[in-house]
Amino acid sequence: MPVGTQASVKGVRQQELAEELDARIVLANTYHLFLRPGHETIRTLGGLHRFMSWERAILTDSGGYQVFSLSSLRDVNDHGVVFRSHLDGDRHEFTPESTVDVQMALGSDIMMVLDECLPYPSSHVATRESVQRTVGWAQRAFVHYRRRCEQETAPHALFPIVQGSMYKDLRRDCAAQLLELDAEGYAIGGLSVGEPRPLSLDMTELTTPLLPQERPRYVMGVGMPDELPEYVARGVDMMDCVLPSRNARNGYLFTSRGKLVIKHARYKQDPRPIDADCGCSTCRQYSRAYLRHLFQAGELLYSTLATIHNIRRYLDIMREIRQSVLLGTFPEYLTAVRSLAVEET
Amino acid sequence: MPVGTQASVKGVRQQELAEELDARIVLANTYHLFLRPGHETIRTLGGLHRFMSWERAILTDSGGYQVFSLSSLRDVNDHGVVFRSHLDGDRHEFTPESTVDVQMALGSDIMMVLDECLPYPSSHVATRESVQRTVGWAQRAFVHYRRRCEQETAPHALFPIVQGSMYKDLRRDCAAQLLELDAEGYAIGGLSVGEPRPLSLDMTELTTPLLPQERPRYVMGVGMPDELPEYVARGVDMMDCVLPSRNARNGYLFTSRGKLVIKHARYKQDPRPIDADCGCSTCRQYSRAYLRHLFQAGELLYSTLATIHNIRRYLDIMREIRQSVLLGTFPEYLTAVRSLAVEET
Repeated sequence: MPVGTQASVKGVRQQELAEELDARIVLANTYHLFLRPGHETIRTLGGLHRFMSWERAILTDSGGYQVFSLSSLRDVNDHGVVFRSHLDGDRHEFTPESTVDVQMALGSDIMMVLDECLPYPSSHVATRESVQRTVGWAQRAFVHYRRRCEQETAPHALFPIVQGSMYKDLRRDCAAQLLELDAEGYAIGGLSVGEPRPLSLDMTELTTPLLPQERPRYVMGVGMPDELPEYVARGVDMMDCVLPSRNARNGYLFTSRGKLVIKHARYKQDPRPIDADCGCSTCRQYSRAYLRHLFQAGELLYSTLATIHNIRRYLDIMREIRQSVLLGTFPEYLTAVRSLAVEET
Repeated sequence: MPVGTQASVKGVRQQELAEELDARIVLANTYHLFLRPGHETIRTLGGLHRFMSWERAILTDSGGYQVFSLSSLRDVNDHGVVFRSHLDGDRHEFTPESTVDVQMALGSDIMMVLDECLPYPSSHVATRESVQRTVGWAQRAFVHYRRRCEQETAPHALFPIVQGSMYKDLRRDCAAQLLELDAEGYAIGGLSVGEPRPLSLDMTELTTPLLPQERPRYVMGVGMPDELPEYVARGVDMMDCVLPSRNARNGYLFTSRGKLVIKHARYKQDPRPIDADCGCSTCRQYSRAYLRHLFQAGELLYSTLATIHNIRRYLDIMREIRQSVLLGTFPEYLTAVRSLAVEET
C-alpha cells in the first residue's frame, strides 16, 4: 500500500496512482490528518475519499505510532494518551474510542485500533505492561466500534494490532487475547522500529500462524523490495511502507536488478530508462541521464517521476507474488528471487 | 510559453503539458543547461527534445539575461561576456557565436541571440553603448548562424532582441539596425526588469510597429494575466513568463474572476474548485480546501496541481485571444476584459 500520510502520496496525483499504477488502496495517517486539516473539516467536506479525490480503498492507521514517534510530552495512561502536536505544541488526547471516531469521520475503509508502539529495545517487563494496555485499548475500541456500527451503514473494518516487541511469549499472549475480538483482519505492529531485520521476520513468522488464515494479515511499516516475498512466505497479505516514495525522493530507485543511486556520475549520459523491464510511464519516457539531471538540479519533477517508478516496482513485485500464489508456483518464485544477486545496475 | 528553465516546467510532467494542457512550445534556459548538465551532454543524448521527452517546439533564450542577473564577476567586452557560474564559481565565456553553437547543440527550434540586458534604470549614455554592443553581437551571431545553417539541415530560427531600456530613440535605432538581419522573428527584451508596468507597454507599443508584421514578435518575460491582451493589442505574438508556474508554487492562483490566495483561511472548508469555469484536471477533481491543505502541509502535490491550473489559465487566455482575433472581435474582447473588475474570488 503506497503511503499518503497527509492525504497525498508525495508528488503523485491520484489519477496516476489509480490509472497508471493501479494502486487499489492507499494508507493515510490519522495523527497528521487529525492535526491538519482536522477530521471534522474532512467530514464536512464529504470524507477523505472525496477530499482527496480517491475512489478506491483507504486504510488509516490509528495515529498511535506517530504520537509515540513525533509528538512531545506524552502522558500514557490506561485511559489513553495525552500529547502535544509536533506542529504547534497544542495539547490533545487520543483514546481508543476517540481514534475510532476520528477514523470514522475520515470515512476510512480499514481502520486501526489505538496501540502503544514501543521503541526497540524494550524490557520484557515494560513490554508486558504495554501489551496489556494495547489489548485493553483494543477491547475498548471494539466495544465502541460495534456500537457505532449499529448506527452507520457504510462498511468499515477495524483491525487490532499485535504488539509484544521481540518477545515470543508476549506476541503469543497478545495475539491470543486479540483473537477474541473476532476482527475482520489483524495487524502486526511494533516492527521496523530499529531491530535487526531477521528479527522482524522471526516475529512475523511466529505471529501469523496464530491469526486467522482466511482474514487479512497486515504487517505495518515494511519493507525493502527483497523482503516483500519473505513476508508473504510467512503468511502476510498486506504491507505498507514509505520506502518506495521516500527512497525515490532521496535518489534511490528500485529495479528488477537491484538498487540504482541516480546521483552517480555514471548515469550522467546514460540514455537507458531506470529499468528496461519496467513498464511505468517514467521508464517509457525518460532516461537515467534526464532523471539524474532533474535530481542534481533540485527539480520538483524528479520526485514525481522517481516516485511513480518506485511505486510501480513495488506493485509489480506484489503482482508477481500474487500471480505465483494463484498458479501455485510461489515456492519456486521465492527460491528464484532469493538466489538473485542484488547488485546495483 | 510555459517556462522550463532547467528542461522541466517545475512540477509538471511533459505528458500533462502536451496532452492535458496542449502547450505547443516551452522555453528552456541556455545559461542553466550550459552549466548543468552541459550542452554537450544533451547533444550526446540526442538533443533537448529527446533529453526531456518533449516532441513539440522549444525556444531557448541566449543565456544573456541570466549571465547579467545570476552570475558574478561579469566582464563584458565587445568580444563577449566572461562570467562565473552561480553554481560553482567556474569561469566561462559566452560570445555571440558560442551561444548559437550551444543552442544548436541543444537542438532548439527558436534560438535567441546573445544580448546585453541592462538593469532599470540605466542612463542614456550607458544604454546607447549597450545597444551598439547588442546590435554588433546580433550581427556576428547571424553571420555565424548562417554559416552553420549551410551545414545543418534541421530547421531552426534565430531571433535578434531589440534593447534600448526606456529610451524611445534607442529602441527605434536598435530595431532599425536589427531589421537588416532579415530574421524570421524578433524579440523585444529588456522589459520586466523593474520599470513601472505602463512603461513596459509603452516601449512595446513603440517597438512592434517597427518590426515585420508578418513575422513573430516576441516580448520576453511578460506578463500578468490581464496584461496578455494588452501586449497582443500592441502587436505581440509570443510571450513567456515564469509567473503562472512560480505564482502557483507560492500560493497565487489565477482565475477567470481574478487572483485567489490559497492559504487564506476562508478556503479551509471550501469544496469548490479553484475556478468553476476552468476545465483543467485540477479544477475537475480537487477542491480549494484540498489544495489549501496540501499548501499548508508543504506537500509536493500542491505545486503540481496548482501549476497545471495556472498554466491552463494562461493558455486559455491566449486561446480566447486567438479566437477573437480570428473572429475579428478582438477589440470587443479587449474592451470586455479591461472593464472586468479584477477582484479576488
